[in-house]
Amino acid sequence: MLLDGKIVANEKMTKIKSEIDSIKDKFKITPYLHLIQVGNNSASTIYANSKIKRGKKLGIEVELEKFDAIDQQLLVDHIKSLNAKKDVNGIMIESPLPDGMSFYEAVNNITFYKDSDGMTAYNQGNLSMKNEMIAPATARAVIDILEYYKVSGKRVCIINRSSVVGRPLAMLLLNRDYTVTICHSKTADIKKICRENDTVVVAVGSPAFLTMDYVTEQSTVIDVGINYSEEKITGDADFDGIKDFVENITPVPGGVGIVTATDIFENFLNGLKYQIENKK
Amino acid sequence: MLLDGKIVANEKMTKIKSEIDSIKDKFKITPYLHLIQVGNNSASTIYANSKIKRGKKLGIEVELEKFDAIDQQLLVDHIKSLNAKKDVNGIMIESPLPDGMSFYEAVNNITFYKDSDGMTAYNQGNLSMKNEMIAPATARAVIDILEYYKVSGKRVCIINRSSVVGRPLAMLLLNRDYTVTICHSKTADIKKICRENDTVVVAVGSPAFLTMDYVTEQSTVIDVGINYSEEKITGDADFDGIKDFVENITPVPGGVGIVTATDIFENFLNGLKYQIENKK
Repeated sequence: MLLDGKIVANEKMTKIKSEIDSIKDKFKITPYLHLIQVGNNSASTIYANSKIKRGKKLGIEVELEKFDAIDQQLLVDHIKSLNAKKDVNGIMIESPLPDGMSFYEAVNNITFYKDSDGMTAYNQGNLSMKNEMIAPATARAVIDILEYYKVSGKRVCIINRSSVVGRPLAMLLLNRDYTVTICHSKTADIKKICRENDTVVVAVGSPAFLTMDYVTEQSTVIDVGINYSEEKITGDADFDGIKDFVENITPVPGGVGIVTATDIFENFLNGLKYQIENKK
Repeated sequence: MLLDGKIVANEKMTKIKSEIDSIKDKFKITPYLHLIQVGNNSASTIYANSKIKRGKKLGIEVELEKFDAIDQQLLVDHIKSLNAKKDVNGIMIESPLPDGMSFYEAVNNITFYKDSDGMTAYNQGNLSMKNEMIAPATARAVIDILEYYKVSGKRVCIINRSSVVGRPLAMLLLNRDYTVTICHSKTADIKKICRENDTVVVAVGSPAFLTMDYVTEQSTVIDVGINYSEEKITGDADFDGIKDFVENITPVPGGVGIVTATDIFENFLNGLKYQIENKK
Protein backbone atom coordinates (compact mmCIF):
# COMPACT_ATOMS: atom_id res chain seq x y z
CA MET A 1 0.00 0.00 0.00
CA LEU A 2 1.21 3.47 -0.79
CA LEU A 3 1.09 5.58 2.36
CA ASP A 4 0.12 8.90 0.85
CA GLY A 5 1.36 11.82 2.96
CA LYS A 6 -0.84 14.36 1.22
CA ILE A 7 -4.01 12.81 2.65
CA VAL A 8 -2.53 12.82 6.16
CA ALA A 9 -1.31 16.39 5.77
CA ASN A 10 -4.65 17.60 4.43
CA GLU A 11 -6.53 16.17 7.36
CA LYS A 12 -4.06 17.75 9.77
CA MET A 13 -4.25 21.12 8.01
CA THR A 14 -8.04 21.12 8.38
CA LYS A 15 -7.79 20.28 12.07
CA ILE A 16 -5.14 22.93 12.77
CA LYS A 17 -6.96 25.60 10.77
CA SER A 18 -10.16 25.01 12.66
CA GLU A 19 -8.38 25.40 16.00
CA ILE A 20 -6.55 28.52 14.82
CA ASP A 21 -9.83 29.98 13.56
CA SER A 22 -11.54 29.49 16.88
CA ILE A 23 -8.60 30.97 18.81
CA LYS A 24 -8.60 34.04 16.54
CA ASP A 25 -12.31 34.34 16.96
CA LYS A 26 -12.30 33.93 20.73
CA PHE A 27 -9.19 35.92 21.67
CA LYS A 28 -9.07 38.45 18.82
CA ILE A 29 -5.37 37.86 18.17
CA THR A 30 -3.27 37.33 15.06
CA PRO A 31 -1.13 34.23 15.63
CA TYR A 32 2.41 35.11 14.58
CA LEU A 33 5.42 32.93 13.74
CA HIS A 34 8.83 34.61 13.40
CA LEU A 35 11.48 33.01 11.14
CA ILE A 36 15.14 33.99 11.25
CA GLN A 37 17.59 33.28 8.46
CA VAL A 38 21.28 34.11 8.60
CA GLY A 39 23.16 34.03 5.29
CA ASN A 40 21.72 33.04 1.95
CA ASN A 41 21.45 29.27 1.82
CA SER A 42 19.03 28.71 -1.06
CA ALA A 43 17.43 25.55 0.38
CA SER A 44 16.63 27.33 3.60
CA THR A 45 15.08 30.22 1.67
CA ILE A 46 12.82 27.71 -0.09
CA TYR A 47 11.81 26.15 3.24
CA ALA A 48 11.13 29.54 4.79
CA ASN A 49 8.94 30.59 1.87
CA SER A 50 6.97 27.38 2.01
CA LYS A 51 6.29 28.01 5.71
CA ILE A 52 5.03 31.51 4.90
CA LYS A 53 2.69 30.05 2.27
CA ARG A 54 1.42 27.27 4.49
CA GLY A 55 0.98 29.70 7.39
CA LYS A 56 -1.21 31.89 5.19
CA LYS A 57 -3.47 28.91 4.43
CA LEU A 58 -3.86 28.36 8.16
CA GLY A 59 -4.48 32.00 9.02
CA ILE A 60 -1.10 32.34 10.75
CA GLU A 61 1.10 35.31 9.97
CA VAL A 62 4.63 34.12 9.20
CA GLU A 63 7.46 36.58 8.66
CA LEU A 64 11.05 35.94 7.63
CA GLU A 65 13.74 38.16 9.13
CA LYS A 66 17.00 37.93 7.19
CA PHE A 67 20.50 38.75 8.38
CA ASP A 68 23.40 38.68 5.92
CA ALA A 69 25.56 37.99 8.95
CA ILE A 70 25.18 38.37 12.70
CA ASP A 71 27.38 37.68 15.69
CA GLN A 72 26.31 34.58 17.70
CA GLN A 73 25.82 36.57 20.89
CA LEU A 74 23.77 39.24 19.14
CA LEU A 75 21.60 36.50 17.66
CA VAL A 76 21.07 35.02 21.13
CA ASP A 77 20.19 38.47 22.51
CA HIS A 78 17.77 38.96 19.63
CA ILE A 79 16.11 35.60 20.36
CA LYS A 80 15.73 36.59 24.00
CA SER A 81 14.04 39.83 22.99
CA LEU A 82 11.64 37.85 20.78
CA ASN A 83 10.95 35.47 23.70
CA ALA A 84 9.80 38.48 25.69
CA LYS A 85 7.40 39.81 23.05
CA LYS A 86 3.84 38.76 23.76
CA ASP A 87 2.78 39.08 20.11
CA VAL A 88 5.46 36.62 18.89
CA ASN A 89 3.95 33.15 19.33
CA GLY A 90 6.61 31.06 17.65
CA ILE A 91 10.28 31.40 16.67
CA MET A 92 12.21 29.29 14.18
CA ILE A 93 15.81 29.60 13.07
CA GLU A 94 16.43 28.40 9.55
CA SER A 95 19.15 25.80 9.33
CA PRO A 96 22.03 25.87 8.52
CA LEU A 97 23.62 28.90 10.15
CA PRO A 98 26.85 30.13 8.54
CA ASP A 99 30.13 28.43 9.46
CA GLY A 100 31.40 29.33 12.91
CA MET A 101 27.93 29.74 14.38
CA SER A 102 26.24 27.15 16.59
CA PHE A 103 22.69 26.31 15.54
CA TYR A 104 21.89 24.35 18.74
CA GLU A 105 23.26 26.99 21.07
CA ALA A 106 21.13 29.61 19.32
CA VAL A 107 17.97 27.47 19.22
CA ASN A 108 18.36 26.42 22.84
CA ASN A 109 17.68 30.01 23.85
CA ILE A 110 14.19 29.97 22.41
CA THR A 111 11.71 29.76 25.25
CA PHE A 112 10.13 26.31 25.17
CA TYR A 113 6.58 27.32 24.30
CA LYS A 114 7.75 29.33 21.28
CA ASP A 115 10.04 26.56 19.99
CA SER A 116 7.96 25.56 16.94
CA ASP A 117 10.82 23.37 15.67
CA GLY A 118 10.96 21.32 18.88
CA MET A 119 14.73 21.51 18.93
CA THR A 120 15.39 22.86 22.44
CA ALA A 121 16.88 20.51 25.01
CA TYR A 122 13.95 21.19 27.30
CA ASN A 123 11.36 20.08 24.76
CA GLN A 124 13.45 17.07 23.73
CA GLY A 125 13.70 16.03 27.37
CA ASN A 126 9.97 16.45 27.91
CA LEU A 127 9.32 13.75 25.31
CA SER A 128 10.97 11.27 27.70
CA MET A 129 8.39 12.23 30.31
CA LYS A 130 5.58 11.71 27.75
CA ASN A 131 4.96 15.43 27.47
CA GLU A 132 4.62 15.85 23.69
CA MET A 133 3.37 19.44 23.57
CA ILE A 134 6.30 20.30 21.29
CA ALA A 135 8.17 17.63 19.30
CA PRO A 136 10.44 17.73 16.24
CA ALA A 137 8.02 17.82 13.31
CA THR A 138 9.62 14.98 11.36
CA ALA A 139 9.18 12.62 14.29
CA ARG A 140 5.56 13.70 14.67
CA ALA A 141 5.00 13.17 10.93
CA VAL A 142 6.17 9.54 11.06
CA ILE A 143 3.76 8.87 13.93
CA ASP A 144 0.92 10.59 12.08
CA ILE A 145 1.42 8.38 9.03
CA LEU A 146 1.64 5.16 11.06
CA GLU A 147 -1.50 6.10 12.97
CA TYR A 148 -3.51 7.38 10.01
CA TYR A 149 -2.96 4.17 8.06
CA LYS A 150 -3.23 1.99 11.20
CA VAL A 151 0.05 0.25 10.37
CA SER A 152 -0.03 -2.78 12.64
CA GLY A 153 3.55 -3.97 13.37
CA LYS A 154 4.79 -2.71 16.72
CA ARG A 155 8.50 -3.32 16.17
CA VAL A 156 10.18 -0.35 14.49
CA CYS A 157 13.75 0.17 13.39
CA ILE A 158 15.00 3.72 12.79
CA ILE A 159 18.11 4.29 10.70
CA ASN A 160 19.07 7.69 12.13
CA ARG A 161 20.32 8.72 15.55
CA SER A 162 20.08 12.51 15.29
CA SER A 163 18.25 14.79 17.69
CA VAL A 164 16.11 15.96 14.74
CA VAL A 165 14.76 12.57 13.70
CA GLY A 166 15.90 9.31 15.29
CA ARG A 167 16.05 10.14 18.97
CA PRO A 168 12.81 12.11 19.35
CA LEU A 169 11.00 9.61 17.11
CA ALA A 170 12.17 6.79 19.38
CA MET A 171 10.63 8.67 22.33
CA LEU A 172 7.29 9.16 20.57
CA LEU A 173 7.21 5.51 19.53
CA LEU A 174 7.99 4.29 23.06
CA ASN A 175 5.21 6.53 24.36
CA ARG A 176 2.90 4.49 22.08
CA ASP A 177 4.12 1.03 23.14
CA TYR A 178 6.30 0.38 20.10
CA THR A 179 9.51 -1.58 20.56
CA VAL A 180 12.27 0.50 19.00
CA THR A 181 15.72 -0.17 17.58
CA ILE A 182 17.98 2.73 16.63
CA CYS A 183 20.62 2.04 13.98
CA HIS A 184 23.19 4.31 12.37
CA SER A 185 26.30 4.40 10.21
CA LYS A 186 28.32 2.40 12.75
CA THR A 187 25.76 -0.41 13.06
CA ALA A 188 27.02 -3.80 11.93
CA ASP A 189 24.55 -6.06 10.17
CA ILE A 190 22.06 -3.30 9.59
CA LYS A 191 20.26 -5.19 6.81
CA LYS A 192 19.54 -8.11 9.10
CA ILE A 193 18.33 -5.79 11.88
CA CYS A 194 15.96 -4.05 9.49
CA ARG A 195 14.49 -7.38 8.41
CA GLU A 196 13.86 -8.31 12.06
CA ASN A 197 11.53 -5.30 12.38
CA ASP A 198 8.00 -4.69 11.11
CA THR A 199 8.67 -1.10 10.12
CA VAL A 200 11.85 0.59 8.92
CA VAL A 201 12.19 4.37 9.14
CA VAL A 202 15.09 5.49 6.98
CA ALA A 203 16.74 8.92 7.17
CA VAL A 204 20.29 8.65 5.87
CA GLY A 205 20.41 11.20 3.07
CA SER A 206 21.45 8.73 0.39
CA PRO A 207 19.29 7.99 -2.69
CA ALA A 208 18.27 4.34 -3.23
CA PHE A 209 20.06 3.32 0.00
CA LEU A 210 17.28 1.05 1.24
CA THR A 211 17.14 -1.88 -1.16
CA MET A 212 15.53 -5.33 -1.13
CA ASP A 213 18.23 -6.53 1.28
CA TYR A 214 16.70 -4.45 4.08
CA VAL A 215 13.08 -5.52 3.80
CA THR A 216 10.66 -8.43 3.85
CA GLU A 217 7.24 -8.79 2.28
CA GLN A 218 5.76 -7.71 5.62
CA SER A 219 7.85 -4.54 5.89
CA THR A 220 6.49 -1.04 6.14
CA VAL A 221 9.00 1.52 4.86
CA ILE A 222 8.78 5.11 6.05
CA ASP A 223 11.15 7.17 3.93
CA VAL A 224 12.31 10.40 5.60
CA GLY A 225 15.02 11.12 3.01
CA ILE A 226 14.86 14.14 0.73
CA ASN A 227 17.62 14.05 -1.87
CA TYR A 228 17.85 16.60 -4.66
CA SER A 229 19.26 15.63 -8.03
CA GLU A 230 19.11 17.59 -11.28
CA GLU A 231 16.06 15.74 -12.47
CA LYS A 232 14.02 15.13 -9.35
CA ILE A 233 13.59 14.73 -5.59
CA THR A 234 14.06 11.21 -4.25
CA GLY A 235 14.01 9.57 -0.85
CA ASP A 236 16.44 7.14 0.77
CA ALA A 237 14.57 4.04 -0.38
CA ASP A 238 15.00 2.36 -3.74
CA PHE A 239 11.34 3.10 -4.30
CA ASP A 240 10.93 1.47 -7.71
CA GLY A 241 12.96 -1.54 -6.63
CA ILE A 242 10.96 -2.38 -3.49
CA LYS A 243 7.51 -0.77 -3.77
CA ASP A 244 5.78 -3.84 -5.21
CA PHE A 245 7.47 -6.18 -2.73
CA VAL A 246 6.94 -4.55 0.68
CA GLU A 247 3.65 -4.29 2.55
CA ASN A 248 3.62 -0.46 2.77
CA ILE A 249 5.83 2.40 1.65
CA THR A 250 5.73 6.20 1.69
CA PRO A 251 6.58 8.00 -1.56
CA VAL A 252 9.04 10.90 -1.89
CA PRO A 253 7.83 13.51 -2.57
CA GLY A 254 4.34 13.28 -1.12
CA GLY A 255 5.20 11.25 1.95
CA VAL A 256 6.82 12.26 5.23
CA GLY A 257 7.96 15.68 3.97
CA ILE A 258 4.56 17.20 3.44
CA VAL A 259 3.30 15.94 6.81
CA THR A 260 6.40 17.38 8.48
CA ALA A 261 5.73 20.77 6.89
CA THR A 262 2.27 20.66 8.45
CA ASP A 263 3.36 19.38 11.85
CA ILE A 264 5.54 22.43 12.44
CA PHE A 265 2.23 24.24 12.81
CA GLU A 266 0.95 21.67 15.28
CA ASN A 267 3.90 22.65 17.46
CA PHE A 268 3.11 26.30 16.85
CA LEU A 269 -0.56 25.75 17.74
CA ASN A 270 0.26 23.82 20.93
CA GLY A 271 2.70 26.53 21.99
CA LEU A 272 0.11 29.20 21.24
CA LYS A 273 -2.48 27.41 23.35
CA TYR A 274 0.05 27.15 26.19
CA GLN A 275 0.70 30.89 25.95
CA ILE A 276 -3.00 31.66 26.12
CA GLU A 277 -3.71 29.24 28.98
CA ASN A 278 -0.76 30.46 31.02
CA LYS A 279 -1.10 34.13 30.08
CA LYS A 280 2.45 34.23 28.71
CA MET B 1 33.09 -13.19 33.77
CA LEU B 2 31.65 -11.51 36.83
CA LEU B 3 31.50 -7.76 36.22
CA ASP B 4 32.25 -6.51 39.71
CA GLY B 5 30.74 -3.10 40.35
CA LYS B 6 32.77 -2.49 43.49
CA ILE B 7 35.99 -2.24 41.48
CA VAL B 8 34.41 0.22 39.05
CA ALA B 9 32.92 2.25 41.89
CA ASN B 10 36.19 2.36 43.81
CA GLU B 11 38.09 3.68 40.81
CA LYS B 12 35.41 6.31 40.25
CA MET B 13 35.42 7.31 43.93
CA THR B 14 39.16 7.89 43.80
CA LYS B 15 38.88 9.99 40.67
CA ILE B 16 36.00 12.11 42.01
CA LYS B 17 37.67 12.58 45.39
CA SER B 18 40.84 13.80 43.78
CA GLU B 19 38.93 16.39 41.73
CA ILE B 20 36.90 17.50 44.76
CA ASP B 21 40.10 17.83 46.79
CA SER B 22 41.75 20.04 44.22
CA ILE B 23 38.63 22.23 43.88
CA LYS B 24 38.47 22.66 47.66
CA ASP B 25 42.14 23.47 47.74
CA LYS B 26 42.04 25.93 44.87
CA PHE B 27 38.76 27.74 45.57
CA LYS B 28 38.53 27.35 49.36
CA ILE B 29 34.92 26.21 49.23
CA THR B 30 32.96 23.42 50.91
CA PRO B 31 31.05 21.56 48.17
CA TYR B 32 27.50 21.12 49.41
CA LEU B 33 24.69 18.81 48.29
CA HIS B 34 21.18 19.43 49.64
CA LEU B 35 18.74 16.51 49.93
CA ILE B 36 15.01 16.97 50.44
CA GLN B 37 12.71 14.27 51.76
CA VAL B 38 8.97 14.65 52.15
CA GLY B 39 7.24 12.05 54.29
CA ASN B 40 8.85 9.05 55.90
CA ASN B 41 9.40 6.40 53.23
CA SER B 42 11.93 4.10 54.87
CA ALA B 43 13.72 3.12 51.64
CA SER B 44 14.30 6.76 50.75
CA THR B 45 15.67 7.42 54.25
CA ILE B 46 18.17 4.60 53.68
CA TYR B 47 19.19 6.04 50.31
CA ALA B 48 19.56 9.53 51.76
CA ASN B 49 21.74 8.29 54.58
CA SER B 50 23.96 6.35 52.19
CA LYS B 51 24.46 9.55 50.17
CA ILE B 52 25.47 11.42 53.32
CA LYS B 53 27.99 8.68 54.12
CA ARG B 54 29.40 8.52 50.60
CA GLY B 55 29.57 12.30 50.43
CA LYS B 56 31.65 12.34 53.62
CA LYS B 57 34.14 9.94 52.02
CA LEU B 58 34.44 12.33 49.08
CA GLY B 59 34.77 15.48 51.17
CA ILE B 60 31.33 16.71 50.12
CA GLU B 61 28.92 17.99 52.74
CA VAL B 62 25.53 16.36 52.28
CA GLU B 63 22.55 17.42 54.36
CA LEU B 64 19.05 15.98 54.48
CA GLU B 65 16.16 18.35 54.98
CA LYS B 66 12.99 16.54 56.05
CA PHE B 67 9.41 17.70 55.72
CA ASP B 68 6.61 15.64 57.25
CA ALA B 69 4.41 17.21 54.60
CA ILE B 70 4.64 20.24 52.33
CA ASP B 71 2.40 21.79 49.71
CA GLN B 72 3.62 21.21 46.12
CA GLN B 73 3.86 24.95 45.39
CA LEU B 74 5.76 25.63 48.61
CA LEU B 75 8.19 22.86 47.68
CA VAL B 76 8.71 24.43 44.26
CA ASP B 77 9.28 27.84 45.86
CA HIS B 78 11.75 26.26 48.26
CA ILE B 79 13.64 24.64 45.37
CA LYS B 80 13.82 27.99 43.63
CA SER B 81 15.29 29.59 46.73
CA LEU B 82 17.91 26.81 46.88
CA ASN B 83 18.67 27.38 43.17
CA ALA B 84 19.54 30.96 44.04
CA LYS B 85 21.90 30.11 46.90
CA LYS B 86 25.51 30.18 45.78
CA ASP B 87 26.65 27.82 48.52
CA VAL B 88 24.22 25.08 47.47
CA ASN B 89 25.96 23.15 44.69
CA GLY B 90 23.51 20.30 44.20
CA ILE B 91 19.87 19.55 45.02
CA MET B 92 18.19 16.16 45.11
CA ILE B 93 14.63 15.27 45.98
CA GLU B 94 14.21 11.83 47.47
CA SER B 95 11.71 9.70 45.64
CA PRO B 96 8.87 8.94 46.15
CA LEU B 97 7.00 12.05 47.20
CA PRO B 98 3.72 11.48 49.10
CA ASP B 99 0.57 10.74 47.10
CA GLY B 100 -0.88 13.75 45.36
CA MET B 101 2.50 15.40 44.78
CA SER B 102 4.31 15.38 41.43
CA PHE B 103 7.95 14.31 41.65
CA TYR B 104 8.78 15.38 38.08
CA GLU B 105 7.13 18.76 38.36
CA ALA B 106 9.12 19.43 41.53
CA VAL B 107 12.43 18.13 40.15
CA ASN B 108 12.00 20.04 36.90
CA ASN B 109 12.37 23.27 38.86
CA ILE B 110 15.91 22.45 39.93
CA THR B 111 18.30 24.58 37.90
CA PHE B 112 20.12 22.29 35.49
CA TYR B 113 23.63 22.62 36.95
CA LYS B 114 22.40 21.70 40.44
CA ASP B 115 20.37 18.70 39.22
CA SER B 116 22.60 15.94 40.65
CA ASP B 117 19.99 13.31 39.82
CA GLY B 118 19.89 14.24 36.12
CA MET B 119 16.12 14.13 36.10
CA THR B 120 15.23 17.56 34.66
CA ALA B 121 13.85 17.71 31.14
CA TYR B 122 16.66 20.08 30.16
CA ASN B 123 19.40 17.66 31.19
CA GLN B 124 17.57 14.71 29.62
CA GLY B 125 17.29 16.63 26.36
CA ASN B 126 20.95 17.60 26.43
CA LEU B 127 21.89 13.92 26.25
CA SER B 128 20.37 13.85 22.75
CA MET B 129 22.80 16.61 21.76
CA LYS B 130 25.69 14.62 23.22
CA ASN B 131 26.03 16.98 26.16
CA GLU B 132 26.47 14.54 29.06
CA MET B 133 27.45 16.98 31.80
CA ILE B 134 24.53 15.67 33.88
CA ALA B 135 22.94 12.26 33.23
CA PRO B 136 20.78 9.93 35.32
CA ALA B 137 23.27 8.03 37.46
CA THR B 138 21.95 4.56 36.67
CA ALA B 139 22.49 5.13 32.96
CA ARG B 140 26.00 6.41 33.62
CA ALA B 141 26.72 3.36 35.79
CA VAL B 142 25.83 0.91 33.02
CA ILE B 143 28.18 2.73 30.65
CA ASP B 144 30.94 2.76 33.27
CA ILE B 145 30.73 -1.00 33.73
CA LEU B 146 30.68 -1.71 29.97
CA GLU B 147 33.67 0.56 29.46
CA TYR B 148 35.68 -0.59 32.48
CA TYR B 149 35.45 -4.23 31.44
CA LYS B 150 35.77 -3.40 27.73
CA VAL B 151 32.66 -5.43 26.89
CA SER B 152 32.91 -5.82 23.14
CA GLY B 153 29.42 -6.36 21.65
CA LYS B 154 27.95 -3.16 20.25
CA ARG B 155 24.33 -4.28 20.05
CA VAL B 156 22.47 -3.60 23.30
CA CYS B 157 18.92 -4.35 24.32
CA ILE B 158 17.42 -2.47 27.27
CA ILE B 159 14.34 -3.85 29.02
CA ASN B 160 13.07 -0.58 30.50
CA ARG B 161 11.65 2.53 28.87
CA SER B 162 11.60 4.93 31.83
CA SER B 163 13.18 8.38 31.91
CA VAL B 164 15.31 7.19 34.84
CA VAL B 165 16.95 4.22 33.12
CA GLY B 166 16.01 3.09 29.62
CA ARG B 167 15.68 6.33 27.70
CA PRO B 168 18.74 8.19 29.01
CA LEU B 169 20.80 5.00 28.77
CA ALA B 170 19.79 4.66 25.12
CA MET B 171 21.07 8.21 24.53
CA LEU B 172 24.43 7.51 26.21
CA LEU B 173 24.82 4.27 24.24
CA LEU B 174 24.01 5.97 20.93
CA ASN B 175 26.58 8.64 21.76
CA ARG B 176 29.11 5.78 21.91
CA ASP B 177 28.13 4.11 18.63
CA TYR B 178 26.10 1.28 20.15
CA THR B 179 23.03 0.04 18.29
CA VAL B 180 20.17 0.11 20.77
CA THR B 181 16.84 -1.67 21.15
CA ILE B 182 14.40 -0.57 23.84
CA CYS B 183 11.89 -3.17 25.06
CA HIS B 184 9.22 -3.01 27.73
CA SER B 185 6.19 -4.76 29.17
CA LYS B 186 4.26 -4.43 25.90
CA THR B 187 7.00 -5.91 23.71
CA ALA B 188 6.05 -9.12 21.97
CA ASP B 189 8.74 -11.77 21.59
CA ILE B 190 11.04 -10.11 24.11
CA LYS B 191 13.08 -13.29 24.67
CA LYS B 192 13.95 -13.54 21.00
CA ILE B 193 14.87 -9.85 20.83
CA CYS B 194 17.17 -10.22 23.82
CA ARG B 195 18.93 -13.16 22.18
CA GLU B 196 19.51 -11.08 19.04
CA ASN B 197 21.58 -8.63 21.08
CA ASP B 198 25.10 -8.86 22.53
CA THR B 199 24.19 -7.20 25.79
CA VAL B 200 20.92 -7.17 27.73
CA VAL B 201 20.30 -4.47 30.33
CA VAL B 202 17.39 -5.51 32.52
CA ALA B 203 15.47 -3.19 34.85
CA VAL B 204 12.01 -4.58 35.42
CA GLY B 205 11.80 -4.93 39.20
CA SER B 206 11.03 -8.64 39.18
CA PRO B 207 13.34 -11.22 40.81
CA ALA B 208 14.65 -14.00 38.54
CA PHE B 209 12.84 -12.48 35.54
CA LEU B 210 15.75 -12.90 33.12
CA THR B 211 16.19 -16.64 32.62
CA MET B 212 18.07 -18.83 30.14
CA ASP B 213 15.38 -18.09 27.53
CA TYR B 214 16.65 -14.53 27.19
CA VAL B 215 20.36 -15.16 26.72
CA THR B 216 22.97 -16.92 24.64
CA GLU B 217 26.47 -18.05 25.56
CA GLN B 218 27.73 -14.75 24.13
CA SER B 219 25.40 -12.56 26.20
CA THR B 220 26.49 -9.89 28.62
CA VAL B 221 23.83 -9.29 31.27
CA ILE B 222 23.73 -5.97 33.10
CA ASP B 223 21.29 -6.30 35.97
CA VAL B 224 19.83 -3.00 37.15
CA GLY B 225 17.17 -4.61 39.35
CA ILE B 226 17.18 -4.22 43.12
CA ASN B 227 14.52 -6.39 44.74
CA TYR B 228 14.21 -6.72 48.49
CA SER B 229 12.98 -9.92 50.04
CA GLU B 230 13.09 -10.96 53.68
CA GLU B 231 16.30 -12.87 53.24
CA LYS B 232 18.28 -10.84 50.75
CA ILE B 233 18.61 -8.34 47.91
CA THR B 234 18.37 -9.79 44.40
CA GLY B 235 18.42 -8.40 40.89
CA ASP B 236 16.14 -9.05 37.92
CA ALA B 237 18.27 -11.86 36.50
CA ASP B 238 18.08 -15.48 37.57
CA PHE B 239 21.69 -15.10 38.59
CA ASP B 240 22.35 -18.68 39.74
CA GLY B 241 20.53 -20.08 36.74
CA ILE B 242 22.46 -18.21 34.05
CA LYS B 243 25.79 -17.05 35.53
CA ASP B 244 27.79 -20.05 34.33
CA PHE B 245 26.22 -19.97 30.86
CA VAL B 246 26.50 -16.32 29.76
CA GLU B 247 29.69 -14.51 28.80
CA ASN B 248 29.42 -11.74 31.44
CA ILE B 249 27.04 -10.80 34.22
CA THR B 250 26.85 -8.17 36.98
CA PRO B 251 25.96 -9.41 40.49
CA VAL B 252 23.29 -7.87 42.74
CA PRO B 253 24.32 -6.50 45.15
CA GLY B 254 27.77 -5.33 44.11
CA GLY B 255 26.96 -4.51 40.49
CA VAL B 256 25.16 -1.56 38.94
CA GLY B 257 23.80 -0.26 42.27
CA ILE B 258 27.10 0.65 43.86
CA VAL B 259 28.34 2.37 40.68
CA THR B 260 25.07 4.32 40.51
CA ALA B 261 25.53 5.50 44.09
CA THR B 262 28.94 6.85 43.06
CA ASP B 263 27.85 8.37 39.76
CA ILE B 264 25.42 10.70 41.52
CA PHE B 265 28.55 12.45 42.69
CA GLU B 266 29.95 12.63 39.16
CA ASN B 267 26.86 14.66 38.31
CA PHE B 268 27.39 16.75 41.42
CA LEU B 269 31.06 17.30 40.52
CA ASN B 270 30.29 18.26 36.91
CA GLY B 271 27.63 20.69 38.08
CA LEU B 272 30.02 22.15 40.63
CA LYS B 273 32.69 22.68 37.96
CA TYR B 274 30.09 24.38 35.75
CA GLN B 275 29.14 26.69 38.62
CA ILE B 276 32.78 27.62 39.19
CA GLU B 277 33.59 28.14 35.50
CA ASN B 278 30.47 30.21 34.89
CA LYS B 279 30.57 32.05 38.22
CA LYS B 280 27.07 30.85 39.12
